This record gives sequence, C-alpha cells and structure tokens, in this order.
Amino acid sequence: MNERELGRVGAFSDGVFAVAITLLVLDIHRPGDFSQLPQSLLDLWPSYLAYVTSFVSIGTFWMHHHYVFGLLGRIDWVFMGLNILILMFIAFMPFPTAVLAQSLGSGEGREAATVFYAVVLCATSVVTNAAWQYAARGRRLVSPNAPADEIRMTSQTYLIGPVGYLIAAAVAFFSPWTAIAICGALVLLYVLPTSHWLAERGTAPREEN
Amino acid sequence: MNERELGRVGAFSDGVFAVAITLLVLDIHRPGDFSQLPQSLLDLWPSYLAYVTSFVSIGTFWMHHHYVFGLLGRIDWVFMGLNILILMFIAFMPFPTAVLAQSLGSGEGREAATVFYAVVLCATSVVTNAAWQYAARGRRLVSPNAPADEIRMTSQTYLIGPVGYLIAAAVAFFSPWTAIAICGALVLLYVLPTSHWLAERGTAPREEN
Amino acid sequence: MNERELGRVGAFSDGVFAVAITLLVLDIHRPGDFSQLPQSLLDLWPSYLAYVTSFVSIGTFWMHHHYVFGLLGRIDWVFMGLNILILMFIAFMPFPTAVLAQSLGSGEGREAATVFYAVVLCATSVVTNAAWQYAARGRRLVSPNAPADEIRMTSQTYLIGPVGYLIAAAVAFFSPWTAIAICGALVLLYVLPTSHWLAERGTAPREEN
Amino acid sequence: MNERELGRVGAFSDGVFAVAITLLVLDIHRPGDFSQLPQSLLDLWPSYLAYVTSFVSIGTFWMHHHYVFGLLGRIDWVFMGLNILILMFIAFMPFPTAVLAQSLGSGEGREAATVFYAVVLCATSVVTNAAWQYAARGRRLVSPNAPADEIRMTSQTYLIGPVGYLIAAAVAFFSPWTAIAICGALVLLYVLPTSHWLAERGTAPREEN
Repeated sequence: MNERELGRVGAFSDGVFAVAITLLVLDIHRPGDFSQLPQSLLDLWPSYLAYVTSFVSIGTFWMHHHYVFGLLGRIDWVFMGLNILILMFIAFMPFPTAVLAQSLGSGEGREAATVFYAVVLCATSVVTNAAWQYAARGRRLVSPNAPADEIRMTSQTYLIGPVGYLIAAAVAFFSPWTAIAICGALVLLYVLPTSHWLAERGTAPREEN
Repeated sequence: MNERELGRVGAFSDGVFAVAITLLVLDIHRPGDFSQLPQSLLDLWPSYLAYVTSFVSIGTFWMHHHYVFGLLGRIDWVFMGLNILILMFIAFMPFPTAVLAQSLGSGEGREAATVFYAVVLCATSVVTNAAWQYAARGRRLVSPNAPADEIRMTSQTYLIGPVGYLIAAAVAFFSPWTAIAICGALVLLYVLPTSHWLAERGTAPREEN
Repeated sequence: MNERELGRVGAFSDGVFAVAITLLVLDIHRPGDFSQLPQSLLDLWPSYLAYVTSFVSIGTFWMHHHYVFGLLGRIDWVFMGLNILILMFIAFMPFPTAVLAQSLGSGEGREAATVFYAVVLCATSVVTNAAWQYAARGRRLVSPNAPADEIRMTSQTYLIGPVGYLIAAAVAFFSPWTAIAICGALVLLYVLPTSHWLAERGTAPREEN
Repeated sequence: MNERELGRVGAFSDGVFAVAITLLVLDIHRPGDFSQLPQSLLDLWPSYLAYVTSFVSIGTFWMHHHYVFGLLGRIDWVFMGLNILILMFIAFMPFPTAVLAQSLGSGEGREAATVFYAVVLCATSVVTNAAWQYAARGRRLVSPNAPADEIRMTSQTYLIGPVGYLIAAAVAFFSPWTAIAICGALVLLYVLPTSHWLAERGTAPREEN
C-alpha cells in the first residue's frame, strides 16, 4: 500500500514536472522575419538562455524530488499538501521564464524580471525545504533503512537553496546577469558536488536490497 | 491483473490531472508593457489568484481521486467511463480559469465569469460523487479490507462538495468575491479537516499490509 | 521484463493520450467581448461540442487501448512502431477539433471541416485495427490466458470503427451534423454495448490471477 | 530500489517525451481563410510534413530510450544528469519543427531552417550517445544479464546517428529537401533494420525471466 501510494504521488509529481519542463519551449516564439533567418534565430539567444536555465533548474529540482522520494518509506496527507505546493511553483516556472526571456531580449525591465525569476525559484526552494523538513523531523516519513547521516547532510544541503536564491534576487536589483549566474551556480551546486556523494550510494550495499 | 488495471487507469488519470494543472500557467499572459515591469507584474494579480485557486482546487480533486483509488480493489468498464467524465471536467478547468482571471482584471462580466467557474467546479464535484457512489454502492468496487465506516464517512463528506459549489454559483450572481472565497473554503474543507482523520490512516495497522 | 516493457509502453501511450486529450481545451478561446459575458460564453457552444466529442472519442480510444494492452502478454518492436502511429493520430486530434469548432461557429467550411475530422478519426481507427490484427494474428502477442472467443469478438468489433468513420466522412460532404452524430454514435457503440460484455470480465474468475 | 529508481526516471522521461511529441500539434495553426477550407487545409502540407517527421523522430528516440533502459540494471546521478540533457533537446524539438514548417510553407529561409532542424536532431543524437557510452563503458550501469554482443552492437549502431544528422545539416545548406529525406532515412534506419534483430529479443529465452 505504502509503496503504491508513494508510487502514485511520485508519478503525478513526475507528470507535473514533465509538463512544466516541456511547456518552457512554448515561450520561444518563431521569429517574425524569415528572410534573414540565420540572424533571426541567433537573435533569440535570450529565449534559449532562459530555456536552458529554467530547464536545468526544474530538472535539478526534479532530481532532488526523486532523491527525496527514494529516502521516504511512507507518505501522509500533510506531505501530499506540501507536495501540491511544490508543484504549484514548479508549474508556474514557464511564466517567469517567459518574462525573463522577453526582458533580456528587449532590454526593458531586466532587473524586475530577474528579481521576479529569482523570487519564484526562492519560493520553490523554500517549499521544497519545508516538505523535506516535515518528512525528516523525527524521521516522520523517512524509510527505516535510510542512514541518519545522509538525512542530516540532506537537511543541511537543502538550506543553501533558499538563501542562495534570496541572494540572487537581491543582486538582481543591481545586476541581472550576476543574478542569473548565481542561479546557474546553484544548479551546479546541487548537481555536481552532491554528485560524488550521491554516486557512492549507487554502489553502496544498501542499494542492493 | 486488477492491480495493473487500477494502476494504469490511475496513471492515465494522473496524466490528465498533471497536464490540466500545469496548463493553467499558459493563461497567465506576459504583460504588454515592459517599461513599468514591476507594476505590470503586480497588475496581473487576478491571474495569480485564479491560478492559485484553480491549482489548489484541481490538486485537491487529485488528492481525493488518489484517495478513492486507494480504497478500490478493482475497477470496471462503467467506472472507467465515469472516470473519463471526471477527467473531461478537470481538463476543462483552464478555460473557466482564464475567463475568471480576465474578468477579474478588466472588471467586466465578473458575476457571469464566477458563476461559470463555480458551475464547472460543481459539475466536477457531481461527477466525482457519482463515480464514488457507483463504486461504493454495495461495496461494488471497494477493496475487501477497506473499513465500512471509512466508506460511509467518505460518502457523506463527498456530498458537501456539490452543494457547496452550487451555493457558490448562486452567490456569484450577487458577489463574485464571496463566491471565490466559498470555493477556497471548500478546498480547505477537503484538505484540512479530513487531514486529521486521513492522517491517522497513515499510521494505522491496516496500512502495513 | 515483459511486464515492465508492457508497462512502460503503456505508460508512454497513456502520457500521449493524456496530453492530447487535455490540450483540447487550449482551442477554446476566451470570448472577445466580456461586456455581454453570459451571451459570449453561450456563443462558444461549437467549441464545447467539439471539445466533448473529441474528448469522449479520444477517451474511448484510450479505454480500448487500455483494454487491448490487458489482453497482451508481450510486445515487440513492430507493435511499438504501430503504437507510435496510433499515437501520432491521437496527438493530431486537437487540430481537426479546432478546425471543426471554428467552422461550426462561423458557418464557413462546415462540410470540409467535418470531412477532415471524420477522416482523421477513420485513420486513427484503421491504425488501431492494424495494431490489433498484428497482435492477434496467430495469437502473436496475446497473453496465453486470454480466451479465444474474446479475441475473435474483439477482432470483429474493431472492424466497425473504420467503416463507421468512413461513412461519417462520406455523409459529411452533405450533412455535417449527421456526420457528427455518427461519430457520437460510434463512441456510444464502443462504450455502451461492449460495456455489458466487458463488465463481465470484471467479475470473471480469470480476473483473479 | 534500483527497479523503482529506474522506473521513476523512465516514467519522468516518458512524460517529457509524451508531452514534447504531443505539443508538436500546437504548431499547426488553423487556416485564416475558412471560405476555401479544403484548399486551406491542403496548403498546410508543410506543417503536416514537419509534424510527421518530428513525431516519428521523437518516437524513434523514445523507442531507443526505452530499449536502452531495458538493458540497464541500475542508474546513477551522472546518468540522470545526462538524461536531463537528452530531455532538454527532445523538449526543444517543437521549436525547430515550427520554424521548419513555416519556412517550408513560405519558401523563405528554407536552408537555414533545415540546418537548424538537423543540428538540433544531431545534438539530441550526440547526447543520447554520450549517455549510452557512459552507461556501457565497462558495463557500468548495464544489467548483468545483458549479452555482451548486444551491448557492442548497440554502441556501434548508435554512432551512425550523430554522423548522419551532421551530414543532413551540411546538405541542408544546399538542398533542404535532401536533408529532410536524410532525416527520414535515419528514422527508418533506426526503426527498420534493427527491427529484425530486436524483434528476436522478444522471443528469446532471456526475455522470460
């Protein structure tokens, strides 16, 4: 039962992540002028940049969502509600992405668009944290065979996200490009350094059962 | 076989819920004026409000859909047809949401848009009820180890939805905001009070098998 | 292995069905005039009609796709290719639906739009048949415990679809409304009469293993 | 655990593939002139051609993604990152498809649009190769019961894709139609000849466990 419950909540979440990440492409609009197509396609670079940034950001949130679900042994009604909130922010991402792409392209409102973008990522990160803290507090929903130090390290690592995106939002008031670089760095942080540590799990004996 | 059948109907339903809930964002249109971007983004508040209301409404319907499937032991052709009807109304939600957001923003047609919105939610609630009553009548599709009092309580609780949304639709003729508040209250009703009762299931011994 | 293969092909197919069926709503455009909103919403009836017709049509194709997968014991590369073809027509449905809705609303091109609509449904039905015949021929992919008479009856029933939609397409040249009614009748045919026969499967002992 | 991990990454990937392949239809725009509807619908042939080419291309990538996952025994963090990259290019496909369809229809920028289209397919193919080589190198992630010669043959076959799409991109500078034919031929190559070899797997004893 618990397996199936976890499975179905995971499947629904995967669905929302998958749709949200794929809808990003709809905000790349066909160029108006096809007579100079190579140039027109190159001029869309802000849309490509926003697409890639949002795709890898949502992708990284998904990888950690997936990772957290792997640590859970069961799920309850409150966690499902928090999960809906996470999905609400993930599914919202195509909008700030579209706003960011247009402002980067036109040059108007870059600061406001980047602040907005970073604030939404920050909120996503805060809700993700809340869900994890709720699950991990006193091992409420965590699987009995999840090692204690891994839970502790995860709790600590996840605190970086909200702070990092808040800094990005603050920096965006003055320098949008620096803020975007911070958002990219946070993706790398959550993909790369943890990569080594998490990759070990892949060969650890605990994996085998 | 039954497990796989239930699983695949659940997966398809999850897919429709996930797509419908994520398509809501497509109705938040980029502001036309990027020179006053902070203000333009704030002026979109009706779109955000409609997005949040619809997202949590669909999310709550999904949570209960998930909950009902957890009580079922098997599925039949009639239930699958009723389920398609439920999904037809869920998948329709982005349209009344878009109409509501635009009417709240422009101030024109607020009453009609809110009536329309509440009527669609009411219809969704009626069809959901019909599917549940069909499944629960004489324990037709319900799992043998689902406790009788839980089935009875679910049947009673689910009757509130259609009535509540009907009241919201009636109130919307005079006061759209009150109607929206009623829709929000119904979400809370279905998420919160049942929360305690359902959370118990998460630790109950029945869960273990 | 076979179970997982079947499961993943089914899941991908469910995804395409779920997205296609949910995208139908995007073709219901917000009315231009919000000052007469009740009337504007009523004037969209062709869009609602096209939405409902396509939704229940795709839903019925999905139910039978699901039903066929329940009869299969394994899957091969050719069937996967045919399945991609089925999905190509299912995923195309939002386009003829949008054309139909607009032509019904404007009154222009009703015959052509309805012919186009019925032809796409006919093609979907033909490809679905081809996939089934390929799977059933000599029980190539059918599960060993699928009863022979059920396979035979399914093969016969599925021949009605292509013929019926072809008739609908032919009739549409003269009477679009009759053609739409035929399409609706075909949905009922595939949902209702088989309903009784298939419902029996739900209580048959074969289901239990 | 490994099964569930593989399952969920596969499910998320299926979701992205399913959404991307279904979003292709959104780029087929309703004709502006409904008074000459049969002709208007025929004039959309570039959109249909681009739809079919992209649908079968994504479908083929999906079939091989599915095939590769069937060979894997486990998954690690690096592979998940590479998988996100694959999905990033798959989810991007609706955009070059829309550009291609419009350029084929208007006659403007056909060379550039086709080069762009082939380059994106080439990049998708390169990333797919990288993920496979990473998984197969020293049987890192491959299931113990996947035969060595099948792994070797897969590694060789998969090298054709990047080269083929690169040739298509080069040819597109001079002859867009030849380039599109090459893209179509590559789909056939990956669907048909391997078909026989892979179909054998379906009846091989290894399948049974």
